[in-house]
Amino acid sequence: MDKILNYVKENNNRYIEELKDFIRIPTISTSSDYKKDMNRGAKFVSEKLKEAGLKKVKIIKTEGHSLVYGEWLKAEGKPTVLIYGHYDVQPVDPLELWDSPPFEPVIKDGKIWARGANDNKGQVYVHIKSVEAYLQNIGSLPVNVKFLIEGEEEIGSSSLSAFLKNNHELLSCDAVLISDTSLYGEGIPTINYGLRGLCYMEIELTGPNRDLHSGSFGGSVANPINELAKLIAKLQRPDGKITIPNFYKDVKNPTKKEKDNFAKLKFSNRKYAKELNVKELYGEKGYSTLERLWTRPSLDCNGIIGGYTEKGAKTVLPSKAAAKISMRLVPDQDPKTIAREFSKYVKSIAPKSVKIEVREMHGGYPVVIPLENKYLKAAEKATSKAFGKKTVFTREGGSIPIVVEFVKQLNAPAILMGLGLDTDNIHSPNEHFSLKSFELGILSSIYFLNEASGL
Amino acid sequence: MDKILNYVKENNNRYIEELKDFIRIPTISTSSDYKKDMNRGAKFVSEKLKEAGLKKVKIIKTEGHSLVYGEWLKAEGKPTVLIYGHYDVQPVDPLELWDSPPFEPVIKDGKIWARGANDNKGQVYVHIKSVEAYLQNIGSLPVNVKFLIEGEEEIGSSSLSAFLKNNHELLSCDAVLISDTSLYGEGIPTINYGLRGLCYMEIELTGPNRDLHSGSFGGSVANPINELAKLIAKLQRPDGKITIPNFYKDVKNPTKKEKDNFAKLKFSNRKYAKELNVKELYGEKGYSTLERLWTRPSLDCNGIIGGYTEKGAKTVLPSKAAAKISMRLVPDQDPKTIAREFSKYVKSIAPKSVKIEVREMHGGYPVVIPLENKYLKAAEKATSKAFGKKTVFTREGGSIPIVVEFVKQLNAPAILMGLGLDTDNIHSPNEHFSLKSFELGILSSIYFLNEASGL
Repeated sequence: MDKILNYVKENNNRYIEELKDFIRIPTISTSSDYKKDMNRGAKFVSEKLKEAGLKKVKIIKTEGHSLVYGEWLKAEGKPTVLIYGHYDVQPVDPLELWDSPPFEPVIKDGKIWARGANDNKGQVYVHIKSVEAYLQNIGSLPVNVKFLIEGEEEIGSSSLSAFLKNNHELLSCDAVLISDTSLYGEGIPTINYGLRGLCYMEIELTGPNRDLHSGSFGGSVANPINELAKLIAKLQRPDGKITIPNFYKDVKNPTKKEKDNFAKLKFSNRKYAKELNVKELYGEKGYSTLERLWTRPSLDCNGIIGGYTEKGAKTVLPSKAAAKISMRLVPDQDPKTIAREFSKYVKSIAPKSVKIEVREMHGGYPVVIPLENKYLKAAEKATSKAFGKKTVFTREGGSIPIVVEFVKQLNAPAILMGLGLDTDNIHSPNEHFSLKSFELGILSSIYFLNEASGL
Repeated sequence: MDKILNYVKENNNRYIEELKDFIRIPTISTSSDYKKDMNRGAKFVSEKLKEAGLKKVKIIKTEGHSLVYGEWLKAEGKPTVLIYGHYDVQPVDPLELWDSPPFEPVIKDGKIWARGANDNKGQVYVHIKSVEAYLQNIGSLPVNVKFLIEGEEEIGSSSLSAFLKNNHELLSCDAVLISDTSLYGEGIPTINYGLRGLCYMEIELTGPNRDLHSGSFGGSVANPINELAKLIAKLQRPDGKITIPNFYKDVKNPTKKEKDNFAKLKFSNRKYAKELNVKELYGEKGYSTLERLWTRPSLDCNGIIGGYTEKGAKTVLPSKAAAKISMRLVPDQDPKTIAREFSKYVKSIAPKSVKIEVREMHGGYPVVIPLENKYLKAAEKATSKAFGKKTVFTREGGSIPIVVEFVKQLNAPAILMGLGLDTDNIHSPNEHFSLKSFELGILSSIYFLNEASGL
């Protein structure tokens, strides 16, 4: 192990130079202008996997951008770890807000600044270099390893999703290792073990068959905006509880252990409120902010529109009003069941004076890996050792659909070993990634593969 | 009187030809392209007033389009009637929906088809010809008459409003006669004696200081759309009553006589709902539809916007949401007081978790002329005689600010002797005006001046 760790130290500068080369390829998946660069990106990843010492490396063509697959399966009788990441990046606008060109990486203040430095090139490269350190020094890995690096994460992972459905055997594994989330704070080793799901709906109310003059008609006929407001207001009680029947039926409350863990994170409501510039936080009574964000479902209007919305005044009683409403779900809520219950409920409370249309937009399952899971525990040990600090366990309010697909379809736990920080400007100008995190990430990966070997 | 009535009959064809000439001038006040035509329109009116026999006729320049003033004040000891109307018209788009060119009047099915045929050239011309019939046959009028015909009614009457403020003496009168509203039904003589007022407000709620990801933040912080919906929902009780404190304090209920009148109009809820294509009407409990429209205040959202409103789904927890909300007012509600009460109330019910901004957009006073008013009674007799039917009294849900200004500033009742029909397509393609209404309108005007003489 010392040999491997020394190798990492000695080769750190080379790693960074290679990462810079990786970053210089503008792999913006959403724009067809970068099709060639996307191919170059996939090529780069496959080359580096080969250089690391993996034997069976291939670029898999899809309807969209290519997948890169590589494997090393000679650890007979040992578990298999599937390492997932992505080589595509977000667009760079607004360009004028960048302090240096987005695809010309700069080292400054112990960080590497560029688009993709963090999300996800920096974080995925950690694992390639960890595997290289093993294979180049001792010629073997303590576990079997599969790499699956995609090029469509920023645009919905649809090609990977299709590939996954048809390749359960190729991708079969005991755990999925992913570094694409955040540390709870700088220098704090963090394992994320839960994601919320999503149920996204659209409601449209129609009142009169045309826009009316609010003077000539006001008071005689239902106004769809007023009715939509009443309907939305009825979706939550004053204490923040969602009123849809059976909504909480399948919700699993956080365990005592989880609540204790969250309490230890010393989350500051005051700091959080100040950062968002609100006088008071709001949410379901009886739960702390972290509990609400990570372990409780929520309901938010994501958009609303109706009538006259330009400057000035127009006395219209509109024909239509519409809202987009999404709910974040937690285990074991089922997005399909929730969509059905939502639809039934809003139709039941809409007054006869308006017509209502309810549309299901999309959904995704929530996931939680039990804290007792042995791969989670291995990741805890590994990151704690690498960072020299006690590892914290977090969950996440958002959804990462592809992660849930891995868990459900491969029947394997997802180990979210995030290395970035919430303040690293991923998806924004001046994205960056700490070189310290990069180095500790490589060590975490090395320790994790070693720990997993004993399971 | 017979001589006068015969004259009207004999000259009817000439009247219609003159009206056609009037209509042919494209007096679109909102577009600067028609400035010359606006001047021609004012000139036409002043010529016709002179030809009718009025002596002191003048075109009054303003900051906008000219006013035309004319008077005949030789009926010593008799009341003075101010006749108001406008020579400007609405734009004509969409042109392709017209069956014949908008400024080339066509006679078809007993109607005259063209922009302005009804609103307001046809209706104002009625009074010019009524006065002509008197002066050309007996050389005098039974009352004193002042004409004030403006060119900015379709764009807000701002020049007239300024002129009115400074010319109370010139315009002083005992009643203002206006034909710019509708008959309750075809062939039914109608006097409108009330208009609702208006208080138009805007609310903006700000939650977090920026748009947030609804996954990462949903459930931890107030969503301004959800809060705006709750706030709007709180403005009305389930029975339709508006909850703003003191809102109804100055509201005068319709009198027994009025309620009886409305009941006699045999308004059909079923037909009304069918025409608007709604299953059920909605409004304040305890009042009929006409009572709600004409005698009760109302509250409508005229517009709402927040978050993502394009096609598809975006998981945003927005920073802001805004709504335009207007209230129609009835005597003796004061728009300024209502704006203050509204603002105070919504601020008091907004939760601390959002910032609220309330803006007053504009307002206007309601007006009702008591049914006992002698000029209303004179108008009732006159129209009943002309149409050969019992006259009905209506009120109107909308506001006509300049009418209220006349009433308040000149301290005179407004007699709204409308001659059009709601189905006459004013402001739309294929505007038209019944030639029968035109003729009966002239008779109504003649009888009214005669009736007013005895007051």
